[in-house]
Amino acid sequence: MTIPTTMKAAVMTEPRRIVIEERPVPELGDDEALVKVMAVGVCGSDVHYYEHGRIGDAVVRQPIVLGHECAGEVVALGRSASRLRIGDRVAIEPQTVCGRCPACKSGKYNLCPDVVFFATPPVDGAFAQYVKMREDFLFPIPDRLSYEEASLIEPFSVGIHAAQRTGLKPGSSVAIMGMGPVGLMAVVAAKAFGASRIYATDLEPIRLEAAVRLGATHAINIREQEPVQAIMQLNGGIGVDAAWETAGHPQALQSALLSLRRGGKLAVVGLPAQAEIPLNVHAITDREVDIYGVFRYANTYPSAIEFLAGGIADVKPLITDRYPLGDTQAALERALTNKSGSLKVMVYPNA
Amino acid sequence: MTIPTTMKAAVMTEPRRIVIEERPVPELGDDEALVKVMAVGVCGSDVHYYEHGRIGDAVVRQPIVLGHECAGEVVALGRSASRLRIGDRVAIEPQTVCGRCPACKSGKYNLCPDVVFFATPPVDGAFAQYVKMREDFLFPIPDRLSYEEASLIEPFSVGIHAAQRTGLKPGSSVAIMGMGPVGLMAVVAAKAFGASRIYATDLEPIRLEAAVRLGATHAINIREQEPVQAIMQLNGGIGVDAAWETAGHPQALQSALLSLRRGGKLAVVGLPAQAEIPLNVHAITDREVDIYGVFRYANTYPSAIEFLAGGIADVKPLITDRYPLGDTQAALERALTNKSGSLKVMVYPNA
Amino acid sequence: MTIPTTMKAAVMTEPRRIVIEERPVPELGDDEALVKVMAVGVCGSDVHYYEHGRIGDAVVRQPIVLGHECAGEVVALGRSASRLRIGDRVAIEPQTVCGRCPACKSGKYNLCPDVVFFATPPVDGAFAQYVKMREDFLFPIPDRLSYEEASLIEPFSVGIHAAQRTGLKPGSSVAIMGMGPVGLMAVVAAKAFGASRIYATDLEPIRLEAAVRLGATHAINIREQEPVQAIMQLNGGIGVDAAWETAGHPQALQSALLSLRRGGKLAVVGLPAQAEIPLNVHAITDREVDIYGVFRYANTYPSAIEFLAGGIADVKPLITDRYPLGDTQAALERALTNKSGSLKVMVYPNA
Amino acid sequence: MTIPTTMKAAVMTEPRRIVIEERPVPELGDDEALVKVMAVGVCGSDVHYYEHGRIGDAVVRQPIVLGHECAGEVVALGRSASRLRIGDRVAIEPQTVCGRCPACKSGKYNLCPDVVFFATPPVDGAFAQYVKMREDFLFPIPDRLSYEEASLIEPFSVGIHAAQRTGLKPGSSVAIMGMGPVGLMAVVAAKAFGASRIYATDLEPIRLEAAVRLGATHAINIREQEPVQAIMQLNGGIGVDAAWETAGHPQALQSALLSLRRGGKLAVVGLPAQAEIPLNVHAITDREVDIYGVFRYANTYPSAIEFLAGGIADVKPLITDRYPLGDTQAALERALTNKSGSLKVMVYPNA
Repeated sequence: MTIPTTMKAAVMTEPRRIVIEERPVPELGDDEALVKVMAVGVCGSDVHYYEHGRIGDAVVRQPIVLGHECAGEVVALGRSASRLRIGDRVAIEPQTVCGRCPACKSGKYNLCPDVVFFATPPVDGAFAQYVKMREDFLFPIPDRLSYEEASLIEPFSVGIHAAQRTGLKPGSSVAIMGMGPVGLMAVVAAKAFGASRIYATDLEPIRLEAAVRLGATHAINIREQEPVQAIMQLNGGIGVDAAWETAGHPQALQSALLSLRRGGKLAVVGLPAQAEIPLNVHAITDREVDIYGVFRYANTYPSAIEFLAGGIADVKPLITDRYPLGDTQAALERALTNKSGSLKVMVYPNA
Repeated sequence: MTIPTTMKAAVMTEPRRIVIEERPVPELGDDEALVKVMAVGVCGSDVHYYEHGRIGDAVVRQPIVLGHECAGEVVALGRSASRLRIGDRVAIEPQTVCGRCPACKSGKYNLCPDVVFFATPPVDGAFAQYVKMREDFLFPIPDRLSYEEASLIEPFSVGIHAAQRTGLKPGSSVAIMGMGPVGLMAVVAAKAFGASRIYATDLEPIRLEAAVRLGATHAINIREQEPVQAIMQLNGGIGVDAAWETAGHPQALQSALLSLRRGGKLAVVGLPAQAEIPLNVHAITDREVDIYGVFRYANTYPSAIEFLAGGIADVKPLITDRYPLGDTQAALERALTNKSGSLKVMVYPNA
Repeated sequence: MTIPTTMKAAVMTEPRRIVIEERPVPELGDDEALVKVMAVGVCGSDVHYYEHGRIGDAVVRQPIVLGHECAGEVVALGRSASRLRIGDRVAIEPQTVCGRCPACKSGKYNLCPDVVFFATPPVDGAFAQYVKMREDFLFPIPDRLSYEEASLIEPFSVGIHAAQRTGLKPGSSVAIMGMGPVGLMAVVAAKAFGASRIYATDLEPIRLEAAVRLGATHAINIREQEPVQAIMQLNGGIGVDAAWETAGHPQALQSALLSLRRGGKLAVVGLPAQAEIPLNVHAITDREVDIYGVFRYANTYPSAIEFLAGGIADVKPLITDRYPLGDTQAALERALTNKSGSLKVMVYPNA
Repeated sequence: MTIPTTMKAAVMTEPRRIVIEERPVPELGDDEALVKVMAVGVCGSDVHYYEHGRIGDAVVRQPIVLGHECAGEVVALGRSASRLRIGDRVAIEPQTVCGRCPACKSGKYNLCPDVVFFATPPVDGAFAQYVKMREDFLFPIPDRLSYEEASLIEPFSVGIHAAQRTGLKPGSSVAIMGMGPVGLMAVVAAKAFGASRIYATDLEPIRLEAAVRLGATHAINIREQEPVQAIMQLNGGIGVDAAWETAGHPQALQSALLSLRRGGKLAVVGLPAQAEIPLNVHAITDREVDIYGVFRYANTYPSAIEFLAGGIADVKPLITDRYPLGDTQAALERALTNKSGSLKVMVYPNA
C-alpha cells in the first residue's frame, strides 16, 4: 500500500467551528506506527471542547483535531517497531506515557505527569485520516470485532478501570448512575466482571433500555423513582457493594454514596461542572466506605478486547449516528443537541 | 482474691451530671471474664455525650456509664473461658461482635450490625470498678506496659486502622490533620508503619510539641501557615502519599484532600458536626485519589501491644490529668473545658 | 410439620462397611437449625475414608457418618435462631467455626483451629435424614435451584476459593489440572470469574467433555498431549495467568507450575498421597510466581448461589449416579470403583 | 570537570582471571547519564560467574565486566536528560527495562523480558571507572549516605522486595534463613517494615552477630539448634507470619516453609544449585500458605534511600574488605575463599 503524503483532518478552529484541512501525514518516530483511522466515536469531552473551547484548566489555544475513541489499520511502521505488522487491525489506546516516572513504573501510568493524550489541548486527536501512535499503545483486534466496536473500547476502558478500582467481584451488586456512553459501557464492564445485580439509573428511557440490553438487571428512571430507595428495595433492603457515578451530577454522586452498603465502594467517574460538591461525610465514616477517583485508565485494552471478542454484549446498537469525516461538525452538533436521542455518534475518516 | 458483690460506677444521669452509684458487679457469661478496671481514658465521644447527651442519632435515653479506653486485671473467668488466666493484666477492646454476619466473617467486624460497644447508648462503659467482657476481646499486656499506656491502645487502634485502610507503606509520607489524642496516637501509628515523613497540623502549640515528641517529623501550626502549601513545600513540591483527617473539621478535610499527591490516599477519621461537607471532586478524579472512611477498628490490639511494648514511642506524657473514679465528673469537665491545655485525661476506678 | 424423634443414618463402622442405624434426631442448640437432608454428594474424601479409614493424620477411630456436600429443608429452629424460617430451602456449608480466634476475626475462618467440619473424624456428616447446623452456615436458595445443584456448592466453593486466592481476573487465562468433580466445578468458578481461556486437563474423555460443556475453552487429554506444551501453544506462546492443580498428582502439580507465565499464580488444591513433592524452585524465582495453598473455603456460599441461580452453567449433568440413603454403601462403592465413568454420585436421605 | 576518553575496567576474560583494560568511556544516549563509579560491592552472583563462568543458563561467552552493586557521581548528562544534575551523588539501580511490555506497564518491571541487567552476560557491569545508565535508574542520595552505603541498596532492595511480596506488616514476625549479605540486608528490610520479631538463622557466628546488630531479635545457629523447633519455641508456640529463604539451601527452604503459621507467607529468594527441591505440599495446603518467588526487585530504590538515610540501621560494618579497582581479582578471590569471615567485599574504582 502506498501512503499518501497528505491527508484530510477535521480541525476545530474555534468553538463550534470545524473545517476540513489538508495536512501532512504524520512522520513516524522509530517506535511508532501509522494508523489509517477507520472509526472514531464522539466523546462527551469532544463535545465539551467543541462547545466551550475548554474543560476546566485545559484550554484550546490553537486549532485542534478532536476525537480519541478510535480504531484503524496499521499502514506503516517506524524503523524499530516490531510488535505489529502492516495490515494489523488495531484498537488505539489514545495516550502515550513516559514509562519512567514513579507513576509509570508502579503500574499507574494513567497518572504519568508527562502523558500525551489525544484531543487534549494542545495534542491533536483522531478526526483525521491518519494518526501515528507509539506501537505499544496499539492492540490488534480479531476479525470478528469491527472497527466501530473497537473504538468503543475507549469508553469501555473507563468502566473496566472503575471495576478494577472498586475491586468489583463476581456475584456482587453495583449501581451505575448515568447511562451516557460511559455509563452504558460501564454496564458491560460490570457484566464482564461478573456482577450479579446491575442497577442502572438515568432519566432517558432510550438509555435505560439500552442499559438493559447490555446487561443491566434493573433500570431505574430517576424521574419516576428516588434512586437510593429504589436500589435499596430492589437489593433486598441492603445497599450495593459498589456504585459508580458516571454522569457528573452532584445529586447522582450523593445518591451513589448513599446507595452503598457498609463497606461498599464508590467510583467517581463523571466530572461535575463545579469542583466542590457536598458529600455526606457521616455516610463515609459510619459505613466505612471507600471512594475511588477514576482518571482515564491503564492496562485495560487487552482485557477489553477479550471481553468484546468473547461476546460479552452486543455493543453495536450503541452507535446511533454515523458521519463521514467531512461532516465532523455535523457529528459534533448532533451529539451536542440530541442528548436524549443519540447514544454514540461515530465518524468514519476513511469511509 | 474475693470478688465483691457490688461496686462503684460513675453514672451519667443527665448531661453534665455524673453520680457515683453502688451497683452489682456484673455476672459473667460462660465465655466472659471479669476485669478490675485500673485506668480509663476520657475520649472526645465521652465528652460529647457528657455535654450534649447524644452524638448524632445515638441518644442517651437512660442513665449510662461512659468510658471505653480502658485496661485492667482479670479477676474472674466464666465457665468456658480458657484463653486467659486470673491475674492477667489486659487491654480491653471495648466491643463485642456477633462473629456470624457477613461483615464479621469477612474480617471487617467493626462493621458488624450487632456490635455492642462500651459507652454507646444504651451500653454501659468502663467508668466503674469492674466490667465484664467476652474473653476474646481481652489482650494480655507485658509487665513493661502500664495500665495507662494500655488504655491508650484504644485511640491508638484508630490510627492503626487508618494506616491499614490507607495502605501506609514504610518510607512513605503522611499528613495528619488535628493533634487531639486520636491524631497524636495516629502519629505513633504512622511511625510504627514506617512512615519517613509525618506532617502534623494543629493550632495548639502544646499539641504540636507532643506530636513531634511522638514522632512527627514536621509540625505545622495552621494559625501561622496555610497547611497545604506548607506540606507541599516541605515535601519537595509533591503531595503526600497519605493524609488522615482526625479533627472533624471541614476545612481540615479539604486540606487533607488537597495535600495528596496523584494516587494519594485519604482517611476520614474525624466526625464533623454537620454531615455534608463540600469536597473538591475534581481533585478526587484528576489526582485519582482513594478516600477511606474509618469507623473504629478491627484486629488492631495485638499489633498495638507489640508496638508499645517494643518502645515505638513514649506515650505516657500524653496523660496530663488524673482523677479517681469519684471525680469522674471533674475529669469530664476538665476534658471539656481545657481543650487547649489537656491532652489525655485519665480516670482510675480502683486507685 | 412434626419432627420425628429418630431418624436413619448411614454409619461407617469400619472401612468398606456402612450400616443403616436408627439414631436420635439431633437436639438443637439455641442458634442452630434442623435440616431435613435432601441431597448429599459423595466426595473424594468420603471415598478415601470409606476405603482407608483415614486421610493422613485424620483417622476414623469410631463409627462415623460420612457426607458433607449437602442441602435440605429447614424443619426446626433453635430458640434464638432468627436468620431463617421453617421451610427455607438451604445449602449447607458443612463447617462451624469459633468466630473468636485471629483467623476467624481476620476473615480466614477456614483456618480456625477449632473448626468442626462434617464427616471429618470424629464429626458426623450428612448421610442421614437430619442434620443440625448453626444457622449462619445455612444459606437459603431460590426455587430455581434444586437441592442437587445446591449440594454441588460445596465442591464449587473450593474452585471459587482457588479463584479468589489466585486473584483470577476477568479476561484472564487459567489452566485447571484434573477434571474430577472439584476440577469440573473449578471450571465453573473460572467462568464465573470471567476467565477468557480455560484449559482443562485430564485423561478421561468423559471428564474432558463435561469440562467443555461447563465452560472450558480447551480440553487437553494428557494421554495424548504433553500438557505444558499444549497449553503454551494454545495460549499464544506465553504461559497462563493462573493454574490450579486439583488432582493431587505430583506430575500435574509440576505441569501447573511450568504452564505459568512470569508473574503467574498457582493454586495447590489437590492433596497428593505423599507429602513431599519435588518442585522446580528456579521456575518459582525466575518467573516470580505466587503459589497459594487452598484449604477448603470461606465466605463462598452467597456468591456461589448467585452464580448458579444466575445460570452460569448447567451443572445438573455432573450427577451421574443416584442412590437412596439405604444404599449409601453402594453409592460409595460406585464412586470408588467407577472413577472413569462416574462424575458425581448423589445420595438422597429422604427420597 | 573534564571527562576522560578512556577509563580502566576490570574485565573477566575467563573464570578466575580478571585483567585491567583501558577502554573507551561509554558514549551517552540522549536519556542517559555518565556515572563515575565510587563503590561497588561484590555479590554472590559475581563470585559465581567468576568461579564457574555461568549461572544456570546464563553463560559468559565473551569477556565481561562484573559488578552491579554500585554508586557514584554523575559527571555527564545526555542531551535530553533532565532529572539529574552534574555532581549528583547517586545510587545506581543496575537495570534498564523497556517500559512498554505488559510487565512494565503493570508495575512489575523486574519481569520485563527485555531487561538489561549489569554483569549478566553479555551486559557489562560496574567494576570500571565509569558506567552509563538511563537517568531514571539513578537515584540521588543525601550527603549523609556514603557511596559504600548506597551500593548496599542493591542487596537491600532484594529484602525490601521480599517484604513487599510477602505483605510484611508492622508488628509481625519473620524468619530469615541465611545471613549472607542478602539475608543481612533482609533483616534491615524487615526492621524497616516494622517486624516485631525477626528470627535470623545461619551457621556462622560472625554472620549471626551481624544480624543481631542490624536488628534481628533472635539469632539461631543451625549447627546448634533445629531451626523450626527453635523458631516455634521462641515465637510462643505458633509459626511465624513470614519466612524468607535467602541461602539457596534446600534444607533451609523446607525449614522456612515449616516455620510458618497457618496463613503464613514464604518468600523464595535464594537460588538453589539444583532446580528441583522437594517441598511439603501438605504443609502448603493444610496451613494454606502463600509462596512467593522473588526475582530481583522493582521500585525499591526511593524507599531504600529513605530507610538508610533515616538511620534504620548502621550497615557500614557489613563492609569487611576493601580493594582498589586494580585488585578486583583479589576482591573476588577474597569473597570466594573467605565465606565464613568476610561479609561484604567492596571495590573502589576511583579510589
